[in-house]
Amino acid sequence: MAKHDDEAANSAPVPTPARASARSPAEGSAEDHLIATYFRPLATHPGAFDLTDDAAAIAPPPGCDLVLNTDGVISNVHFLPEDPADTVARKALRINLSDLAAKGAVPLGFLLSIGLPASLPADWLKSFARGLREDAERYRCPLLGGDTDRSPGAITVYVAALGTVPHGSMVRRKGAQAGEVVVATGTVGDAALGLVLRQDAAAAGRWKLDAAMQDHLLSRYLLPQPRTAIAQALRRHASAAIDVSDGVAGDLAKLCRASGVGAEVAISDVPLSPAARQAVAAEPAMIETILTGGDDFEVIATVAPGWLEGLRREAVAAGVTITRIGEVTSGPGAHFRDAAGRALAFRRPSYSHF
Amino acid sequence: MAKHDDEAANSAPVPTPARASARSPAEGSAEDHLIATYFRPLATHPGAFDLTDDAAAIAPPPGCDLVLNTDGVISNVHFLPEDPADTVARKALRINLSDLAAKGAVPLGFLLSIGLPASLPADWLKSFARGLREDAERYRCPLLGGDTDRSPGAITVYVAALGTVPHGSMVRRKGAQAGEVVVATGTVGDAALGLVLRQDAAAAGRWKLDAAMQDHLLSRYLLPQPRTAIAQALRRHASAAIDVSDGVAGDLAKLCRASGVGAEVAISDVPLSPAARQAVAAEPAMIETILTGGDDFEVIATVAPGWLEGLRREAVAAGVTITRIGEVTSGPGAHFRDAAGRALAFRRPSYSHF
Repeated sequence: MAKHDDEAANSAPVPTPARASARSPAEGSAEDHLIATYFRPLATHPGAFDLTDDAAAIAPPPGCDLVLNTDGVISNVHFLPEDPADTVARKALRINLSDLAAKGAVPLGFLLSIGLPASLPADWLKSFARGLREDAERYRCPLLGGDTDRSPGAITVYVAALGTVPHGSMVRRKGAQAGEVVVATGTVGDAALGLVLRQDAAAAGRWKLDAAMQDHLLSRYLLPQPRTAIAQALRRHASAAIDVSDGVAGDLAKLCRASGVGAEVAISDVPLSPAARQAVAAEPAMIETILTGGDDFEVIATVAPGWLEGLRREAVAAGVTITRIGEVTSGPGAHFRDAAGRALAFRRPSYSHF
Repeated sequence: MAKHDDEAANSAPVPTPARASARSPAEGSAEDHLIATYFRPLATHPGAFDLTDDAAAIAPPPGCDLVLNTDGVISNVHFLPEDPADTVARKALRINLSDLAAKGAVPLGFLLSIGLPASLPADWLKSFARGLREDAERYRCPLLGGDTDRSPGAITVYVAALGTVPHGSMVRRKGAQAGEVVVATGTVGDAALGLVLRQDAAAAGRWKLDAAMQDHLLSRYLLPQPRTAIAQALRRHASAAIDVSDGVAGDLAKLCRASGVGAEVAISDVPLSPAARQAVAAEPAMIETILTGGDDFEVIATVAPGWLEGLRREAVAAGVTITRIGEVTSGPGAHFRDAAGRALAFRRPSYSHF
């Protein structure tokens, strides 16, 4: 953690009220202490210099490209202020890991920039750092450096993530070709339904969800499951891929636009969890929420038909389900058709901030 | 620019009110348009893929380490809401370039994460992007990717910057040795005095500053001058370095702490601009603001005595002045002594957020 990180405390040989604290000059400021206590344990890469310098220095693996992306979460925009701090940290890291996974990249490390209001409870940062540490270890993605600031209002957490791929092999949005198959990992729409559950107390009753189903949807909103385990399989088999952050309909449309193709998806083929199936059965309009809500953090990929089984086999071996949901066409447009063959007209195809 | 970046707009074959805009599906959303218009011109690195993918892919120069740091600016914390948008953008990039320069690194590119309140004037982002583009060109530091969000309150601008150094040659905070010389680039304290001028309308009169002097101090607060031009000279000659973001007293203390040494600085040797000299002459207490205020974005480095002239010669050739301000001692502590040899006791040795 570099700048704005301290009160130097030892410029003056004469004690003054400001120096008459229990902390000795050699220890640095409260923020130095905070970084050393909470964040240094995450900085296991030698090039992070234990967060005691202004920058990290890393030697990229020979023959590899670095894959870089950045994404953040802001309170009241991407998470709710009452969400547990450890899940806020994990979500901030995982949404970036999701991008790396869709691009076929193996995590290398990350930079963290946090803006924290003064009003946070004392143990918020402790919980935040604990969650972040668990995920940094789980995904082998150490902290390389960062920036800690006071924020005048919202909690802001930005991550810049670095991954690696063999030179030239990043999986692009561009690359899908007509005749290929469209696949999705995991299940779609759970997070969007989880958010509905949080905002509409009556929904769980309306959808007749038991406690386990409610927990499933809520946890999918709180905690994305990045598909890091299949990054290499995607690199070997997929012609194009994108992580689903703004809704499967919108993100597939983006992939199609980048590739200059279209797609035809049968809604009945889109993989839904038992909880999501029950919600749609009770309230059919929820299919739009499922297909256009954000925060899935699954991967959509396109695959030549002959490569589908290879991708599926490797994904299953890695613990990730792969479902064929449609075909790539000459386009344009990504169309989601119901059982009668009618393409759905969405009110809002995907989440947008603007 | 990757996620949260759009409204996909072409999932539905049937026109709906949401689609009945002038924008065709192929163009994507308002945010896609915004990114293409304002930010794509900055993304001149081929690995940025014209900001049309979820991540950048760059092949680091062989034999080099990547130097990484991140730092941001938040309205009402690091800049004032009425500051011109182009200077906000430039400041956000330059404070990161300043870190790279102090570490001896040549800029490679940067990631940008911005959170913008809905209330911003329409031309704010246009001006922001123009300033950022000018500096991306000036410092040869192209935009590699980013994230654009709505912010519920403050304007937040985070940059993650990447630079390169030959393997193993990043200039560290650690490395200063007793007997070496302490040097500073440029002049110290101007930005802190510029901030006083903005907050205290009577200060300019009290300090008897003419218009040019006022402009000098104000512009030094608005627009840091990163010492990118001497990055390579620092790598060749300096034993340790740090960029001065939180005040020369505090940042020198940090360098000393990391190196396990001390420093003795004669306040009369600290390089001041004519405007700063005049402020101190009129109001001697301003010396504390000068030595402990933030936002200098100069570099302090330590140099073996035999290397000082080489560093100075290369710096001058690059247009940067280098001033010897003191010596490295066995420590501990960085002491700033007045003409009578008394070490100043600072109320607050450096800027701290916590």
